[in-house]
Order: sequence, then structure tokens, then C-alpha cells
Amino acid sequence: MTVSVEQQERASGQGLGGEAQAPLLKALREAVGTTQVRADSDTRRRYAASTASRSTLPLAVVTPGCQAEVVALVKLAAQYRVALYPVSTGKNWGYGDACAVGAGQLIVDLSRMNRILSVDSELAYAVIEPGVTQQQLSDYLRTHKLPFWIDCTGAGPDTSFMGNILERGFGHSPYGNRLQHISGLQVVLANGEVLSTGFGHYPQARTTHLFPYGVGPYLDGLFTQSNFGIATRVGIWLMPKTACVNHFLCTVERHADIGAVIDALRPLRLDGTLRSILHIGNDLRVISGGRVFPREQAGRETRLPDALRGELRERAGIGAWAISGALYGSAAQVAAARAALKQALRGTAAKASFLSERKLRIGAALAALLGRSARGQRLRAQVGLGEALFAMNRGVPNGRFLAGAYWRRRGGLPAGFPQRANPALDQCGMLWVSPILPLRGADVMELHAMVDPIFKQYGFDLFVTFSMINERALGGVITVAYDKEDPAEVERAKLCYQNVFERVMAAGYIPYRVGNQSMSALDPHGDVYWQTVARIKQALDPDGLIAPGRYQPGFGR
Amino acid sequence: MTVSVEQQERASGQGLGGEAQAPLLKALREAVGTTQVRADSDTRRRYAASTASRSTLPLAVVTPGCQAEVVALVKLAAQYRVALYPVSTGKNWGYGDACAVGAGQLIVDLSRMNRILSVDSELAYAVIEPGVTQQQLSDYLRTHKLPFWIDCTGAGPDTSFMGNILERGFGHSPYGNRLQHISGLQVVLANGEVLSTGFGHYPQARTTHLFPYGVGPYLDGLFTQSNFGIATRVGIWLMPKTACVNHFLCTVERHADIGAVIDALRPLRLDGTLRSILHIGNDLRVISGGRVFPREQAGRETRLPDALRGELRERAGIGAWAISGALYGSAAQVAAARAALKQALRGTAAKASFLSERKLRIGAALAALLGRSARGQRLRAQVGLGEALFAMNRGVPNGRFLAGAYWRRRGGLPAGFPQRANPALDQCGMLWVSPILPLRGADVMELHAMVDPIFKQYGFDLFVTFSMINERALGGVITVAYDKEDPAEVERAKLCYQNVFERVMAAGYIPYRVGNQSMSALDPHGDVYWQTVARIKQALDPDGLIAPGRYQPGFGR
Repeated sequence: MTVSVEQQERASGQGLGGEAQAPLLKALREAVGTTQVRADSDTRRRYAASTASRSTLPLAVVTPGCQAEVVALVKLAAQYRVALYPVSTGKNWGYGDACAVGAGQLIVDLSRMNRILSVDSELAYAVIEPGVTQQQLSDYLRTHKLPFWIDCTGAGPDTSFMGNILERGFGHSPYGNRLQHISGLQVVLANGEVLSTGFGHYPQARTTHLFPYGVGPYLDGLFTQSNFGIATRVGIWLMPKTACVNHFLCTVERHADIGAVIDALRPLRLDGTLRSILHIGNDLRVISGGRVFPREQAGRETRLPDALRGELRERAGIGAWAISGALYGSAAQVAAARAALKQALRGTAAKASFLSERKLRIGAALAALLGRSARGQRLRAQVGLGEALFAMNRGVPNGRFLAGAYWRRRGGLPAGFPQRANPALDQCGMLWVSPILPLRGADVMELHAMVDPIFKQYGFDLFVTFSMINERALGGVITVAYDKEDPAEVERAKLCYQNVFERVMAAGYIPYRVGNQSMSALDPHGDVYWQTVARIKQALDPDGLIAPGRYQPGFGR
Repeated sequence: MTVSVEQQERASGQGLGGEAQAPLLKALREAVGTTQVRADSDTRRRYAASTASRSTLPLAVVTPGCQAEVVALVKLAAQYRVALYPVSTGKNWGYGDACAVGAGQLIVDLSRMNRILSVDSELAYAVIEPGVTQQQLSDYLRTHKLPFWIDCTGAGPDTSFMGNILERGFGHSPYGNRLQHISGLQVVLANGEVLSTGFGHYPQARTTHLFPYGVGPYLDGLFTQSNFGIATRVGIWLMPKTACVNHFLCTVERHADIGAVIDALRPLRLDGTLRSILHIGNDLRVISGGRVFPREQAGRETRLPDALRGELRERAGIGAWAISGALYGSAAQVAAARAALKQALRGTAAKASFLSERKLRIGAALAALLGRSARGQRLRAQVGLGEALFAMNRGVPNGRFLAGAYWRRRGGLPAGFPQRANPALDQCGMLWVSPILPLRGADVMELHAMVDPIFKQYGFDLFVTFSMINERALGGVITVAYDKEDPAEVERAKLCYQNVFERVMAAGYIPYRVGNQSMSALDPHGDVYWQTVARIKQALDPDGLIAPGRYQPGFGR
């Protein structure tokens, strides 16, 4: 059952929020400063805004400035028996945004803690706080002329680097399996102690940010997708720039042919020729990068009519599927990888093209020459996509890949897009289902055949990408993009999401990450894994102070 | 204080062991079969044998045959309040061998659980039990003509694959960071429940062995270097064979030059040109591969006199340091990596040679021609080392690299060596200190300068390797090899070990793994990390049934 923000506001006036909380708010203000505690209705509603159309109104929002203040907050939480809900920058688009799982919690927004504490230019790592964004770190490296690239996700320039890692997101570079590229975490525990993982708890250690495992049980994984503590610092590894980067784009004209192409690429991912995370997206993922749903042409349809979809495909110069990835190394290494890739794709339906900076420049010039002709437009679209991907592969984040969230938005892409994209405040409706699949064509075909009819049934366009998240698995991201201002469409979107979620789950394609609305669905049978997680929670946070309900399916049952 | 096996045996006659344990032994025999429970003195002494000269006599030894029997054992342990000490095959050489941390525990030897449960030839993984050895899995792949190699360690063919992973050992191939190449663990918990990690707890999951993280907190790290459960099954990733492998060997003549060579190689490890774990060993690591300490020539010295060391170096055709690694890929990829390596080493004191199968064959033929001449002997030694390394890089384990343990053994290398090497039963004295260092020449020089005088002071030869365990850190392994039959030398060895351990620890080069004798030294100050570990232990095993004292520094204080 969904409770509206208005209902929550009324309830909180008599309950958790409102005057009853005056002593708590006073104590919080003493701890972190008057201006860093906000309990006004505007602020609370802003944090409640969600792409999921499932808002939880927080009690208040606190913005601590340092680790010591986070410790103070945890102690106050224990004293006042209030739940804290930490967010790094609150931009967990499609999975809950800045919302707590439950209403009436105190949002701890860590975005002010945005220091880049150190960068080691010899051993290629940085130590950062939760508020550091992709853009900030990218800029820092360029400003200081450091020979490194960051791994970028498509979630936009102003999202938290650390927050994404803690949710086990994945990026586009060879460092895209992000959890494998951190070392040395600091976590404020519910009892107010600060835990340093790896070797970090030995003050004299020289390799805290170089060797993640330390000695004794390796705990970092505990603090990802969990509610066991508030992470305040992490060492992240930076990717050394390479002499050469080639971006490659494959187009597969017909849907029926994508499976064979994936199977042809698998050996190259397995043997390390393809070191970066390949992304395989359907036509709509590319089309939606430049525009919203063409309401005027689609009439009363809420899903693209086939003919129109074909036309948009044509205009973008793509097929049913597009595959994108990058090759890194010396010129000789990239040439060897390119040869292996061409060899592997021979006999498949994939048309591969390789982009270098030079090619992109030529393409842009040619597109200008061709002007507003169909060929000119198509080339311009291709160059635009290429430039965005190319930049991302070299550590420059881009908001363009968030565009899918805006697909059904009335009024189109807002003025600030893509640099200042904020799908939650921009009134976008978006829900993500993220099943993991074996890296096999047959599984992609099976999953697609399973979910496409559901999207059709509910009248939504199916946006889907499959990313070669490691050498053996695909991370699928299925987007339900909907019009948040149409209550009927919101209801259909929720049903569509629910249906897809249940189908992929039942079929064994379990999601790698879920939105707040699905936490309780993760443990239908009370299994040993979740019992173990609950025991650890009880040991580390017996009063349930930190993010109750977050990856805690049994909470509130 | 060390208590002799004899003292322990006398004590156990009146205490834990002996007749008092008759009901427990009876119950154990009912659970796993009469022949699978042994409490006789011979068996207990055999399991107490340790390279560390610090034995703990077990109460008895149980060898369950399947997971259900492990569950039964855990329940009996709770009922009879006896501690279980699981070992995979009990070959944790230099770190405690098959010994429990404390005396009077029930050794649960899992070596009979040695099934290779499945191998997926498309997605390149195997599911194995703890008793599966390196040799067994290697043989399986060759017998079934599967296109994969295993990652090998130098610990010998009959060591447990899984046991090494759980202790966070590292191997020689691109899969040498072994913890990054497992997915889906099964663990029997102290309450008798079976935990499946990753997606494994969803019975319908299709990617249990393909995507390690699952959804929710990632728990695998908890069950490495810990005593939180008894792991009974794991999915391990197999490395696809590549069209081409080149082994390379670098010789660095003078000690003073090794630092610069390491710095020259670092960028290649950082940028992924060197995907496998490079091993950098001093002269003695190579020399000891073929022979023991030359007592007859060394007179009363227990450490090699400089002139003799120079002579042995000369005969082996090596310098002060040898670097060994492998390049994998297509012919073009390997050629590109070779070129990058040559380029990087230009201007350093390293002499690099690249071995292919063809070169090794030619070398062997040439050595035969040269016969017993000095050049012939040198070439034969080089070919022998090359062959062993080459085999290991392609998934064939080799006992040769265990030879260091036999260095001070009277009577030389035993008849079964290296195939049946068992340093504990072969009466070898060996202690390992394994500090992690930043991947920097300066740190190698500093650490070496710190420990060499200690070895000199106590009259031991310094054996040391540094392995590029990841892109930013070196895993050092420092061996104290001693004569176990000389009580005075045993005492000196312990003092030498203790001194080295304390020095590297104080200098911030914290060990990545420790022997049983050093568990309690891991937490000198009662820090938050170890308190957190203790809280988790309390949550998962409140009665302390599983491996008390193992990576539990506070135990028994």
C-alpha cells in the first residue's frame, strides 16, 4: 500500500515529526550546526521526491560536515531512538533516489562531506568522502594533470562516486567492477565507533589503500547493499591513462541476431581481450538519448508504434541493438585486440566500427557539411553518441545516458539537461529491474521474450541494456519509464514493474540491486542467508538505528 | 610458552582426551562411520606434526564424507561442548600445517570430500569440495580435454585448492588473486544451518557461480581467514587457455639494482600489460629449488658463506634476484606485451629472456650436448626451472617451489620429493612471515635492509619472494628454514621469526596471513576492527564451537 506524501505529512504532525521532535532537533542543531538541520516541509518534500512514485517523507534532513559529526549523529539517534538513513548525495535514480525505505527517518545527507583527501600519483589511488561526485573527481584529475581516468557510470556527473560503489554499481571502464577497485573503508558503526577495514585499523599500516583484504576476515563486502554502518571514507583505485583508446560500436540490425553476437563476444571477455565492461543496449536506449516520446506523432499510443520506432532507428543510424565498449593499451595492444574482435565477429550479423578521436573529428566535420539532410542528421547523431561514449571511457561523466528517465516526461527534456539532470525533481517516472544473466545469447533471448510481452501488455516501451559486468555474467537493466503526472499510467507502471520483477526472479534471473519498494520481496521464504544477515545486523546495530529496512527484507513484518 | 606433544598427551589422558571422551567418540562414530573417527596416539601425533615446531595435539580426527555429516558434527560439537577445527587437507605449510590453534580440539579433516561437482565448459567454472587438490583439478581438466587452466600456487600438487582460497593465498596466473575468482560458497554454520552465499540461497538462481555478489550484503569475505563457519563447497572460475604463452625470466645481478627494476615494471602491472602475478625471488629461492644447505662445505656455519653463495648462484646461472612471470594471449597480444616489457626494462640492470615451449626444448637438447660441463649444468638448471614455471603457468602444479622448506633438513631432499612433499611429516622446520608492501622499489629495499640483519644475527639464510599480488601491492614471503632436529636451532628460529614479525609489523608492513603462533599478536591494542570481528563471531557461533583462536586474537586472553 502506498501512502501519499500528504498523508505522511499529516501523520507526522501528530507523530514522529512536528513539535514532538523539538528536543531532538535542538540536539541535532547543537551537534552539526543550526543550518545543517532542516525539518521544514519544503525540504522534506524535496527529499521525498522519487522517480518511483513511492515517497517516504523524512522526519528531517541533516547534513553533517565531517566524520566526527556523523559519530555524534549516531549517538543522538541512540539517545532519541530515531532511525538514521544515510545517503551519499541522494541520487540513487530508479532505486529509491534520496528516500528512506521507511517514513519518518532522519535523512543523513553526506553530500557536504566531499573532500578528496589524498591522491597518490605513483600508486594510482585516491581517498574520498561520500559527497565526492564523478564530475568532481574527474575535474580534479584533469586540473592537477594526473595521468589517471576515473571509471564512470551513466548515472550522471553529479552522482556520488562512493555511493554507487556501496550499492555495487558498475561502470564502463576496465575498473567497472567497482568493488574490486577499492581498498580501505571507514565506517561509523551504530555504537559510534569508527571501523577501518583492511589494514586501516593498524595506525602504522602502509598499504591500507593498496591491499584491500588486510588480515583476518575481509569485511568490506558487509558494508555494500546493507544497513550495517555509515561509510564515510574509501580508497578508490584510479585507472592509468593508456597511450591509445579505441571505442567500438557494433550495430545488430535484427533482434533475432543479438544472441549469436553475444556468444561470439563471450570468449573475448573471458580471455581478457575485452577488459572493459561492454554495454549492449536496445534501440530505445540510443533513441531516448536525444529525445522524449513523440506524443504528437504517436496519437493515443503510450508505446511507440512499430513504424515510428523503425523511423527513429533509421534516423539515429542504428539497428535493433547497439554494442559499445572500449579497447585500451599501447597502439600495438589495441591493434591486437581490434584484430581479435574483428575475427570473432566475422560471420555474425554485427557491423563493427572503431572510433578514434581523429575519426570523431572527421565525422563531426562531415556532419556539418551534410547539414540538415537525412545523412547529415544521422551522422550527427552517431558522432554525438560516439563523443559521449568516448568521453565516458576516458573518465569524463555524461548525463546523456540518464535520458531514458525523461522518455515519458511531459514538456520534454528540461533546460538544464544533461548537465544538471535530476530525474526525481524533474518529475520523471522511472523504475529499474536489474536481473543478472549468464553471459549467453540464449539467456538474453529468453529474458527478452519474457519481459517484452509484459511491457506490451501495460503499454510501455521496453528499454533494456545488458552489460558484461564480469567475464561470465550480464547485468541487465530494464527500465519502466512512465508519465508521473498521469495517475493511471503510474498505476500501470507499478504493475508492469511488479510483474517483470516477479517473472525474472521466478525464472532465476535474480536482480543484483533493488529499489526501496522491493526490499521485502528479497526473502520470500525466510532463508538462511537472510537469517545470517539479520544476525549480523543484530550484533552490529541491535537497536536498528541505521537505515531500517534497507536490504533487510524481514523488517516490519 | 610451548607445550610439548608429550606433555599434551599426558594432559589429555586425564582431561579432554582419553576415556572421558568415550561417549563423544561413540556419537561421532555413529555420525560419520567407525573408521572415520581416529583417536589413537599415532594419528593424533601425525596431525600434530608441524613445520612450526609448535604442535597442538588434537582430541581426535574426524573425516566426514559429505556436507550432511559436517552438519551432524557441528550439532554433536554443540551437544558435547567440544571445539571443531576444520582443515581442507591440512597442508597449510609454514602457517600451522594441520594443527589447530589450541590443543584438544577435534580436527575435522575434509580431505575425503573431494568431489568435483560440476564443470561448465561454456562459462568456465567448476564447483568443488574442500578436499579437491590442485593436482586433481589439473588432471581432471586434462583428462576431459577441457580448454582451461587452473591457477596454481607453489605449495605443492596435493594441497587443497579451496583451503588456499579461504586463507587468501595467491597463485601465479592472471587468476592469482584467487578471492576475485570464486562465486557461490556453501558454509555450514555453528547452528547446523547451511549458508549459500551470492545468489545461491535462491534455489532457482541461474548465476550462483557466475556473479559472486548476489543481492544484499556480500558475505564471502567473512569466511576467509576466519572461524565463522565450515566451508564445504565453492564455485571457482577457470582460466581459458590462450593460444600463446610466453614465460619470462629476468635476472638482476646485484641486489642494489632490484628496486629500480621493480619501479620500471610497476606501470606495466598497473596498466594491465602484466596480467599475471609476477614473482620476484632472491637467489636462495632459486638455489634451494635443487638442493639443500651444503653442510659439508659450510663447516660450522649455519648460514651460507658469501663465497659459497656466489658459487651456487653462478652454478644456477642466476643473479641476486630473479623475476618470473608469464604473458598470455594471442600471438599478437603476447608480442605486444613482450615489446612493452622490453621497452620498460631498457636502461635497468635486468636481463630478460622469454621462454616458449620451443626454446625450452632446444635448451634441454643443448644442455644434454654440453653434458657435465659447467655450462651444461647451468643450462640444465635453467631449463629445469623454466619447465617447472612454464608448467605451473599453464595449470600444472609443481612441488619444486616447496624445496625451501627442506633447506636445513638433515639427509637432504627425501625420495618422494617433489611429488609427495610433506614438509611437516618430512621433519622440515619452516616459518613464514608474509608482509604486504607498496609496489615500490624503495619499500623492497627498506624491508630487505630491515630483515637481513636479523637473519644474520640468528645465523639463518634469508629466503624471500615478493609477488605482485595485485596492481599496487607486493606480497612478501620471508622464510625461516631451520633444522628441526637441533633444539638450539629451533629456539633461534623462533626468535628470528618473532623478531622479523615484530619489526615488519611495527614498520607498517602488516602480514597478509599468519601462522597459528601469531594469531594473538594481531590485535595488540583491542581495536575496533577486531571488536567487530568478535561481535560477528558471537552472533554466528556464540558457543565458540568452530576453530576457537583462529584469526581471533582475543581468544584465551
